[in-house]
Amino acid sequence: MPYGSEPPQLLRQKLFYKGRKFNFDVNRYRLPNQSEGEWECIRHPGGALAVPLTQDRKLAIVRQYRFATQGRLLEFPAGTIELGETPESTIEREIQEEVGYKASTWKKIGEFFLAPGYSDEIIYAFLATDLEQLPQHLAQDEDEDIEVILMTPEEVEQAILMGDMTDAKSIAAFTLARPFLFN
Amino acid sequence: MPYGSEPPQLLRQKLFYKGRKFNFDVNRYRLPNQSEGEWECIRHPGGALAVPLTQDRKLAIVRQYRFATQGRLLEFPAGTIELGETPESTIEREIQEEVGYKASTWKKIGEFFLAPGYSDEIIYAFLATDLEQLPQHLAQDEDEDIEVILMTPEEVEQAILMGDMTDAKSIAAFTLARPFLFN
Repeated sequence: MPYGSEPPQLLRQKLFYKGRKFNFDVNRYRLPNQSEGEWECIRHPGGALAVPLTQDRKLAIVRQYRFATQGRLLEFPAGTIELGETPESTIEREIQEEVGYKASTWKKIGEFFLAPGYSDEIIYAFLATDLEQLPQHLAQDEDEDIEVILMTPEEVEQAILMGDMTDAKSIAAFTLARPFLFN
Repeated sequence: MPYGSEPPQLLRQKLFYKGRKFNFDVNRYRLPNQSEGEWECIRHPGGALAVPLTQDRKLAIVRQYRFATQGRLLEFPAGTIELGETPESTIEREIQEEVGYKASTWKKIGEFFLAPGYSDEIIYAFLATDLEQLPQHLAQDEDEDIEVILMTPEEVEQAILMGDMTDAKSIAAFTLARPFLFN
């Protein structure tokens, strides 16, 4: 992965917003090709995502309200990496909170940049197996509005191709999980 | 697609940044489930992306410097929809500027949300075929630093699985194009 191999030269930085989960700043850079310009950036601690596969070969998906899209999206469970967490500990927590499962086996399937034009967020993607349903769902984050749906890998592939699953990180993670789902 | 089916109630909005390509604001909303909170949002006009397939079954990919990742990423050609453009006209322009090809056949393969946790950007994805190489590459955007690479669909799939193509929108678009690439 080419991350960090060619840092730009920071000439000036202005912080416009400091938030709970990320900051937003505007930067004047000199790039490796010597061109100069201003670029805006969400500064994000990164996110972790699970493709959770149950014993009877179903994927646990969440249908989640997103204010930015003014509707509900089908997504794999994911969350922002909090202070002191590793990607693994973040997603172990999120999968319990969002879908009510505990996974015993975790396999890293890849990492990718969500929106490299204006965000430094990296998503760390895992396949979660040996799932055990928790007796009671842990408390959800207050600002989340989430329903859990079980679908076969074939149904998820169809949902992507038919335009029913329209979240980029979930489509990308499904693609990274494919070799482990169809064989 | 559930876009717009359940708009939240906007209680307060503060614009923090007005940029060339997008704005950034912070909003107090009441969601359909009646919970209230503050959410930050990149307000983006949308992007268009092409999966360009040449006559000899190669995909035209760009290797592009991204300040946010401090390195070069493999991506499908894409660009921000500018004022007065349709997604089709944006990507017809971008494919000429970025990879030096003109495509005669365009097929919409899907649309998806890039980062629905903090951005309203929609990516409109197209398969571009009947490509004709332009005699000379049009002028590139000044802040871009781009190299064009031709790869077979099998090579792109391997690049995704091996972690060499790590751009979420490109991985998602490849997945939408799959049924048209392998048969």
